[in-house]
Amino acid sequence: METAFADLKQRLAEIGDLHKVQGVLGWDQRVTMPPLGTEARAEAQATLGRIAHDAFTDAELGRLLDKLAPYGESLAYDSDEASLIRVTKRDWDKASRVPTELEVEMTREAARGHHAWVEARRTSDFAAFLPYLRTNVELKRRYAECFEWSDSPYTALLDDYEPGMTTTEVKAVFDVLRPALTALVAAAPQVDASFLHGDFPVDAQRAFAERILPTLGFEDGSWRLDPTAHPFCTSFSNRDVRLTTRYRDDDLESIWSTLHEAGHGLYAHGIASSLLRTPLANSPSLGLNESQSRTWENLVGRGRPFWTHWYGPLQEAFPKQLGAISLDDFLRAINRAEPGLIRVDADETTYSLHIILRFELEQELIAGTIALEDLPEIWDAKMKEFLGVDVPDNGHGVLQDVHWSGGGIGYFPTYALGNVISLQIWATVREALPDLDAQLAAGDARQLAEWLRENLYSLGRKLSPRETLERLTGLGDIDPQPYLAYLREKVTSLST
Amino acid sequence: METAFADLKQRLAEIGDLHKVQGVLGWDQRVTMPPLGTEARAEAQATLGRIAHDAFTDAELGRLLDKLAPYGESLAYDSDEASLIRVTKRDWDKASRVPTELEVEMTREAARGHHAWVEARRTSDFAAFLPYLRTNVELKRRYAECFEWSDSPYTALLDDYEPGMTTTEVKAVFDVLRPALTALVAAAPQVDASFLHGDFPVDAQRAFAERILPTLGFEDGSWRLDPTAHPFCTSFSNRDVRLTTRYRDDDLESIWSTLHEAGHGLYAHGIASSLLRTPLANSPSLGLNESQSRTWENLVGRGRPFWTHWYGPLQEAFPKQLGAISLDDFLRAINRAEPGLIRVDADETTYSLHIILRFELEQELIAGTIALEDLPEIWDAKMKEFLGVDVPDNGHGVLQDVHWSGGGIGYFPTYALGNVISLQIWATVREALPDLDAQLAAGDARQLAEWLRENLYSLGRKLSPRETLERLTGLGDIDPQPYLAYLREKVTSLST
Repeated sequence: METAFADLKQRLAEIGDLHKVQGVLGWDQRVTMPPLGTEARAEAQATLGRIAHDAFTDAELGRLLDKLAPYGESLAYDSDEASLIRVTKRDWDKASRVPTELEVEMTREAARGHHAWVEARRTSDFAAFLPYLRTNVELKRRYAECFEWSDSPYTALLDDYEPGMTTTEVKAVFDVLRPALTALVAAAPQVDASFLHGDFPVDAQRAFAERILPTLGFEDGSWRLDPTAHPFCTSFSNRDVRLTTRYRDDDLESIWSTLHEAGHGLYAHGIASSLLRTPLANSPSLGLNESQSRTWENLVGRGRPFWTHWYGPLQEAFPKQLGAISLDDFLRAINRAEPGLIRVDADETTYSLHIILRFELEQELIAGTIALEDLPEIWDAKMKEFLGVDVPDNGHGVLQDVHWSGGGIGYFPTYALGNVISLQIWATVREALPDLDAQLAAGDARQLAEWLRENLYSLGRKLSPRETLERLTGLGDIDPQPYLAYLREKVTSLST
Repeated sequence: METAFADLKQRLAEIGDLHKVQGVLGWDQRVTMPPLGTEARAEAQATLGRIAHDAFTDAELGRLLDKLAPYGESLAYDSDEASLIRVTKRDWDKASRVPTELEVEMTREAARGHHAWVEARRTSDFAAFLPYLRTNVELKRRYAECFEWSDSPYTALLDDYEPGMTTTEVKAVFDVLRPALTALVAAAPQVDASFLHGDFPVDAQRAFAERILPTLGFEDGSWRLDPTAHPFCTSFSNRDVRLTTRYRDDDLESIWSTLHEAGHGLYAHGIASSLLRTPLANSPSLGLNESQSRTWENLVGRGRPFWTHWYGPLQEAFPKQLGAISLDDFLRAINRAEPGLIRVDADETTYSLHIILRFELEQELIAGTIALEDLPEIWDAKMKEFLGVDVPDNGHGVLQDVHWSGGGIGYFPTYALGNVISLQIWATVREALPDLDAQLAAGDARQLAEWLRENLYSLGRKLSPRETLERLTGLGDIDPQPYLAYLREKVTSLST
């Protein structure tokens, strides 16, 4: 049995290496690759995808997993070994349903689609992007058809990002959120945030970010931060974490974009080294992962304790803009609720409305109930309906997000779920660390990072999303109420 | 036969993708990777190496090549198809002699050794580097044992970089060079180059490099330039070329470092697109490749025509240092012959002496006739003997170069051969482009780049090094005389 387990681990380690390599290539494509490198990159990604998929869906690996199942069940449920066998079996059952050729084509077209999207977004040219979108959507429909589902083909896609959750369950959460958020947005007072637009030199923003990041609990030499068109975080091991952010010279959004990616990065950094080179070296779901990016971006990064320490340095970095602005006014401005066009710039109150809009559209894309060429028009109408805003061009509308360019349909809901989950976990954190506010006000975020690492990040993917949440908070269900209570208190405090 | 050929091409394309991916990972490791990422990176490289080696040495691929041999011989010798079959067969015969485990271990230890070298060089700590060097040298000795050779095991290593050339043949060239170069160095007059040391802000150097590069014949969007510890160039396709350079704020060496890597980059950029994703998408030898880096660095980049155009802009970029220096004085300074410690900073006259020193040491490393722990002492003594300089510390001595850290033994001689070959080709170039000086003096290097692309770079690896050189110049032998004549004229002109 030990030989079989070692064989399994070795196979999974090499397959994991290939996926990590795809990650490096993806990072490189989005951060550093010269644009004309796209075609060769798409082929290379496709080759890696083919080799990894063939190796993972190898029948011999399936037999190994079956052989090891009783051994896994004889061990503690949350042991590394039992978890590896159990989680890998679920992955294998899914992957084995997908023909290699489809997997390869999805990989290749994702790389091509990304390049086309960058150009189309820059020029607001939806027509130029349409053929790539069509290809990627069509591939995702074929992918969904590989699986069985109870409620909607969309559930098959969702499962890749939020394992075990159905479209119906997501809808139940969003059905609570949407009216409550709409009411909150309507009730939110106007807040003066004009000082957050102006002259914010990029170099000073970068320097400020590079000053904050080392205080959050990253080990020196284990991370880097680069600019990119659409911020993301990826990691190649728990000691090679790549954060990206987007700088604009007329606002400070890069701060929260960086803190957001730092949250993802801390998750990756905290995964137990015993899980490296296994499929468990990841988070249980994107919702849980996103709960941490939102924790660091919002629950920490828009809170009074954090800025009690950092507002002085921020004023020093941007004296012309912020020298005369009080901490209270700054906090009110960065916590305001105000409908806008861009998801990644949205405040906490409006953010999830951007997501619910995409969730509805994505279900239609997969069901084929809307024509792709009508998407910009439908988008613009929904933005008016959900947020009351007029979309000036496709770059600020339907083309704003990277996800669909690579067929990443089913991904968006996890952002809103992350918002919701972040508050469920935060309640536990505050109980466990009663003097957290004082620590953050003293510029010390390391105890928070360490607590989260020990109790959440280090577990990796050993438990399911539900099991992980239940172990951490006592409740496995995704419950929107703590999130709504938090927002209500926030909106109320804006008026005082 | 067409099916067999298509099968061969598909297999080679995927194997080629894996090698390109290893290149991306290597670039990333040297340019961007956080240092603690080393272990995971070494494993990933090893996994790719294993998969690529297994796929390439697959007996089925050997049978395909045998089956296709008569087909290849029925086609024009320099056709893409005949060349692919012939060159791949030679590669296959070599690779099949190397056990996968050895290949994997070499790959893994090269990644580890690189990381150790960066640290050791920074701290001048040879002892810290010694275990990694020992491992890599030992692996290369085992590698050499996989082959048969006529004169020396070193020939087996050399063949990876300079296919078909023996240690004896290299020695014959170097035996002519060494006394001639030593005499030239002794005869060279002292030249005032003090103005080349001083205050040269890195940002201005970078801006100057970014101004020159687009004029050399690169297509926009097909290249990038980054700083690194040890400059190199790699490419992932002919439209994804990565140049690196090293900036110091007290000299201008980055200009020639950048032009050098640009020469490699133009070679990669010029390879015919019909050869992409085949083993032919490369240069026939490192000597030929280096001949082009030296062409752009020296024959172009230290010449009066080039600086007739660029010296004005350079003075504008560094007015404090160069405003009062005449073009004549500048040219004399950048063409002076002056022994120094660092190979990559060496002038054209002394450069090959650095190489001959390494060539001698490497043969001893592989023969096992010196103890590795004695290497610093031997290095320092040889530097005194060859160049008359005293080595102050290992960082400026035996640890200065990256090559040995990754087991790259047999590589160094190609640098000096490149110097020699560059002058053989240059004679042909000057005949073909009689008004080249006038073009360069007008800031136009594109016709030169285009001629070299058409007549050399585009051929890729279709022909052997000897065949390539013969086609280009009429002579296949490597002949040191044009190079020595060029240096003699240079040294003479310094005195006038």
